[in-house]
Amino acid sequence: MSVLIVGSTALDSIKTPNAENPRLLGGSASHAAVAASFFSPVKLVGVVGDDFPKKYFDLYRRHKINLDGLQILPGKTFHWSGEYEANMNNRRTLLTELGVFETFTPTLPKVHQDTLFVLLANIAPALQHHVLDQMRRPKFVVADTMDLWLNIALKDLLKLLPRLDGFVLNDSEAHQLTKEDNVFTAIKKIHQLGPKYVIIKKGSHGSVLSGPRGHFICPAYPLSAVVDPTGAGDSFVGGLMGYLAAARGSVEANLRRAMIYGSVVASFCCEGFGLTRTTKIKRADIERRVKELEKLTEF
Amino acid sequence: MSVLIVGSTALDSIKTPNAENPRLLGGSASHAAVAASFFSPVKLVGVVGDDFPKKYFDLYRRHKINLDGLQILPGKTFHWSGEYEANMNNRRTLLTELGVFETFTPTLPKVHQDTLFVLLANIAPALQHHVLDQMRRPKFVVADTMDLWLNIALKDLLKLLPRLDGFVLNDSEAHQLTKEDNVFTAIKKIHQLGPKYVIIKKGSHGSVLSGPRGHFICPAYPLSAVVDPTGAGDSFVGGLMGYLAAARGSVEANLRRAMIYGSVVASFCCEGFGLTRTTKIKRADIERRVKELEKLTEF
Repeated sequence: MSVLIVGSTALDSIKTPNAENPRLLGGSASHAAVAASFFSPVKLVGVVGDDFPKKYFDLYRRHKINLDGLQILPGKTFHWSGEYEANMNNRRTLLTELGVFETFTPTLPKVHQDTLFVLLANIAPALQHHVLDQMRRPKFVVADTMDLWLNIALKDLLKLLPRLDGFVLNDSEAHQLTKEDNVFTAIKKIHQLGPKYVIIKKGSHGSVLSGPRGHFICPAYPLSAVVDPTGAGDSFVGGLMGYLAAARGSVEANLRRAMIYGSVVASFCCEGFGLTRTTKIKRADIERRVKELEKLTEF
Repeated sequence: MSVLIVGSTALDSIKTPNAENPRLLGGSASHAAVAASFFSPVKLVGVVGDDFPKKYFDLYRRHKINLDGLQILPGKTFHWSGEYEANMNNRRTLLTELGVFETFTPTLPKVHQDTLFVLLANIAPALQHHVLDQMRRPKFVVADTMDLWLNIALKDLLKLLPRLDGFVLNDSEAHQLTKEDNVFTAIKKIHQLGPKYVIIKKGSHGSVLSGPRGHFICPAYPLSAVVDPTGAGDSFVGGLMGYLAAARGSVEANLRRAMIYGSVVASFCCEGFGLTRTTKIKRADIERRVKELEKLTEF
């Protein structure tokens, strides 16, 4: 089955102590869509300006990503510029040019409205609502978010949570949302806000799933060199949703392995700037790391 | 088989935002010895003053800990006082009174010198050397350490590393020792300093083993309330060594499960002040959490 993914489609200029990479393909929807494409057909919903490079349309198409929901508007593509410190954990934003993103309203093509798996990747909660309003009977809806929306659109986000099956956020966002230091206490509070499944991302420390069958502690694939972590969280949730949409059986039964696959795709994402590494891998590379993770965790 | 454990034996006064607990039994050797005692006979090597409460001798004895190597000297027992912040991660030392610890020289009873499993729990590297000098043919030697020794006794510590089979330290200490932000790169550098096995403790994020068979990613047992993390690292390595000494087969084959057992004993340690929770559990409680961890990580 296919996955509908809405989120940002952007050009990212990323500085690290060792390199500078201008105008890479980025945005939550781009990362999530490429990650999901290894497993399922993907329908991308987003907006780009008329400056959007042809090579990035080609990249989407190579990954067989359906672009019927990608609006092309006169103006500039959303451009984000950021800089990482040497430890690759601290990032600061140098520049944000919203461009055509400023007035973006995600209107879905009719054929998209029946998609069963919906990923509301990181984007303003109002737009996540707007996409959900157009869906007919989605089977499994997951949303990601970021600290910005907790700061400036908390009300919208809190109204979104009861509409979700799964909510994905990182540990510092979970702390910000619940005021709880302990991640498992924070999870309990987030369940009370609506979602049946809560997934906390902890970067290189892996992730935690909480659902009706209890917790799952999901490892991160061990990397000895992180080139650029931008988009790793989006890749994680994209890979997760792509795997789920493709897998037979219940979501409940497949969710743990889905997280493992998401974790592996995220590991590839970290090994190159933007999507440069992820777009070079094959499904077999993913399977190899999943097998490795099995060995790395068995006792 | 039994485990010889040398380290500090102390009285800990621990403040948290919710409580104050004066003069609890503490010290790296006390925590490690009680943790190991669930699996193997333990020989404790340390020093206390003549103010050491009788109830703590009784506690050691209830855990069948051999005290032939515990010196009782005229003077005061090592007393540490510390305060935790609300998030239980940041700790500051309020007071350190070395007492009889200041001039402590661990001299081993003859019968102790043939012990095969040796845990050099956190204590000055010079004293860890001194204990090793007295051992005849230990089969498996593991040392723990702390940031203090990296600051004031780095030379001694660097000389100790080639004498060890395994070295245990936390992630910030690994960073301090190697100047590497990436934990897996840090591990490589630590192997080059001598130890065949390197174990990095990451608190609530679990731990990582590195050895000839590659890495093992060991989960922490999920806790929704941490009362007092003092001694959790000592409990981890104590439980690990106790399990190893008791297990049949090669150390290599048992090390992963040993870490899981260490992780579980450490989880109990965090649920009470000092050793108050750990001393109330039974082996069956440990086995239950080990089984839970199996379920929490399978995919």
